[in-house]
Amino acid sequence: MFAVAITILVFNLLPIASSSAHSLSATTLLHDWPAYLAYVVSFLTIGIMWLNHHTMLSAVSRVDRPVLVLNLLLLMGVVAIPFPTALVADHLNDGDAGKVATVTYGLVMIAIAIGYALLWMYLAAHQQELGARRRVRRPRLSTVRFTAGNAGYVSGTLIALVAPVAALIIFGLLAVYYLFEHLPAADADDDGGAE
Amino acid sequence: MFAVAITILVFNLLPIASSSAHSLSATTLLHDWPAYLAYVVSFLTIGIMWLNHHTMLSAVSRVDRPVLVLNLLLLMGVVAIPFPTALVADHLNDGDAGKVATVTYGLVMIAIAIGYALLWMYLAAHQQELGARRRVRRPRLSTVRFTAGNAGYVSGTLIALVAPVAALIIFGLLAVYYLFEHLPAADADDDGGAE
Amino acid sequence: MFAVAITILVFNLLPIASSSAHSLSATTLLHDWPAYLAYVVSFLTIGIMWLNHHTMLSAVSRVDRPVLVLNLLLLMGVVAIPFPTALVADHLNDGDAGKVATVTYGLVMIAIAIGYALLWMYLAAHQQELGARRRVRRPRLSTVRFTAGNAGYVSGTLIALVAPVAALIIFGLLAVYYLFEHLPAADADDDGGAE
Amino acid sequence: MFAVAITILVFNLLPIASSSAHSLSATTLLHDWPAYLAYVVSFLTIGIMWLNHHTMLSAVSRVDRPVLVLNLLLLMGVVAIPFPTALVADHLNDGDAGKVATVTYGLVMIAIAIGYALLWMYLAAHQQELGARRRVRRPRLSTVRFTAGNAGYVSGTLIALVAPVAALIIFGLLAVYYLFEHLPAADADDDGGAE
Repeated sequence: MFAVAITILVFNLLPIASSSAHSLSATTLLHDWPAYLAYVVSFLTIGIMWLNHHTMLSAVSRVDRPVLVLNLLLLMGVVAIPFPTALVADHLNDGDAGKVATVTYGLVMIAIAIGYALLWMYLAAHQQELGARRRVRRPRLSTVRFTAGNAGYVSGTLIALVAPVAALIIFGLLAVYYLFEHLPAADADDDGGAE
Repeated sequence: MFAVAITILVFNLLPIASSSAHSLSATTLLHDWPAYLAYVVSFLTIGIMWLNHHTMLSAVSRVDRPVLVLNLLLLMGVVAIPFPTALVADHLNDGDAGKVATVTYGLVMIAIAIGYALLWMYLAAHQQELGARRRVRRPRLSTVRFTAGNAGYVSGTLIALVAPVAALIIFGLLAVYYLFEHLPAADADDDGGAE
Repeated sequence: MFAVAITILVFNLLPIASSSAHSLSATTLLHDWPAYLAYVVSFLTIGIMWLNHHTMLSAVSRVDRPVLVLNLLLLMGVVAIPFPTALVADHLNDGDAGKVATVTYGLVMIAIAIGYALLWMYLAAHQQELGARRRVRRPRLSTVRFTAGNAGYVSGTLIALVAPVAALIIFGLLAVYYLFEHLPAADADDDGGAE
Repeated sequence: MFAVAITILVFNLLPIASSSAHSLSATTLLHDWPAYLAYVVSFLTIGIMWLNHHTMLSAVSRVDRPVLVLNLLLLMGVVAIPFPTALVADHLNDGDAGKVATVTYGLVMIAIAIGYALLWMYLAAHQQELGARRRVRRPRLSTVRFTAGNAGYVSGTLIALVAPVAALIIFGLLAVYYLFEHLPAADADDDGGAE
């Protein structure tokens, strides 16, 4: 589902090809930069969510029904990402419409972040029944990280009320931040557990 | 195929982004609530079908040609779900058109439910040849559950003739009901068999 | 790729939902029966191709570069099936346009059938290098079957020149025929080899 | 993701079916030959990238975080291929627009080629930590090949400035060249390593 959702993002670019039917030029192509920026931000975001999701679920050796239900709710948000991406791609430069689009984008991200937090908390609370392959730590660092990420998305959503372009860049930087900073530590943990 | 079909549901949201080209506001976004409701209902429905399908086929250790054929017919219905979802998303508030859309939605669900029943009955009848990993019980509780589910979809389809919004909510509640109530029992069965 | 291609077929139904924006009724829904018929025929066709493809490639225990290249050419035809399906869905009742659409459909099927024949002939000719799990019989029955199938698609394409609806039904019956008649024998072979 | 991206290419053909709503004929179908040519070129290109990607990553027995990040950036380019494909399909015959479309196509290919080179260089430099299954040779032949491929895409992009059709054919020939010439040698390496 991550693979399909991330690939669907390109559909937000395809209208650029057909709408500029009679006057395609480098200028008209570049004029649609919000669509490219939205593509990059959402691609990195879904990509990092995918890696995190894999890391999270590989921590346990079996799943029970609540995990499946929480996971389904989480994926309902992830699969919807192409929609706020399309809103941002089409409206980022449209004044108030750009604000509505970027705030919607942020709200979807916050909903997904809450979904991750719920799934993680459930995994941490039931790690023994779920045959945790390594210790899933609940209270300390993980929580700090989740809180930091959520705070980032909440801040970005608030900023979107006044500066949608800045907000979109913040959402992109959050993805880059998670890509380079947070999960390597989790991976180091992994290796530590494996050795 | 479930993964792709469930992800395709977001395509019913994408036109919202482009159709509101010059006047996107929180109001216009919320005005399209039938599309969001249809997305949630269909996502949960396909999700629960996916889990059930996995549970059903994992009960046997091999499949024969009739299983593949019945499965293909079943999937032909599941893959079509984005179509009645689009009908409901576009027409739920359109008076008689909303009724036509929701009745069509219900009829597709009934067709899929019949497909599941046929596959299940075949698996139950041939469980020995198919190397059943646990006893696939035909007569009692399973049949009651299938009948209950089908009765729910038939009732919803009849209600759609007069109250399409209520019918769509019933379809959503049926998915939630299966999510929390029915399969956990089947899973408990699983564990019983595994231990 | 089969899973994605078969799921994409539903995109030929989605325009029905949006095009009938203000006048959806049971009549307008049924008026688009060519789209539903094309969906069913193409779904069964891709489904049966999927099963055959799986059976064919599972006959060998490794693949070499020519197999990958032939397979890629074959899949280039399979992935294109939603295009002639869309032609038929949109034009079946349009007089000469219906003939053009159905002939195109038939030509794509013939191209795919040739692709299958080439892949099968290569597998049969190199079964020893490819570690065939069972004897891949080249000369006799398989060839007869391929020839019969191709003859069916050629006949259907010729009939499409005068009677497009009849041709589409023939393409559907060919899929049903393969579903029930041809591969069960191959499967029986399988079992014979496995025991 | 390769499977989904390659299947999405057919979406560039679907508008042909609906746009020619009232006048579909063999002539109008053939008039859209740029769309078919773009489909074939991009299908072969993604297909060969898929095979190369599989060969490249199967050379190591585990991946670390930088590999995942580089891989994500690479896939961000591959998944975008349907967009320049759509540009070419819609504009190849449009004079200057055709040049813009084909140059964009070439630039995306160059970006992807750089992504492959970076991933390959990282794998070669860290092959011991990554548990290389066979020797990943950095300096010699591989580099020559990468350079040759990149030179091909750069040349094609420059040619696109004056002759877009010729450039598209060059991009197609590059895919065919890699299909038949380069990777078989790599495969031979594989076999050598496996025996």
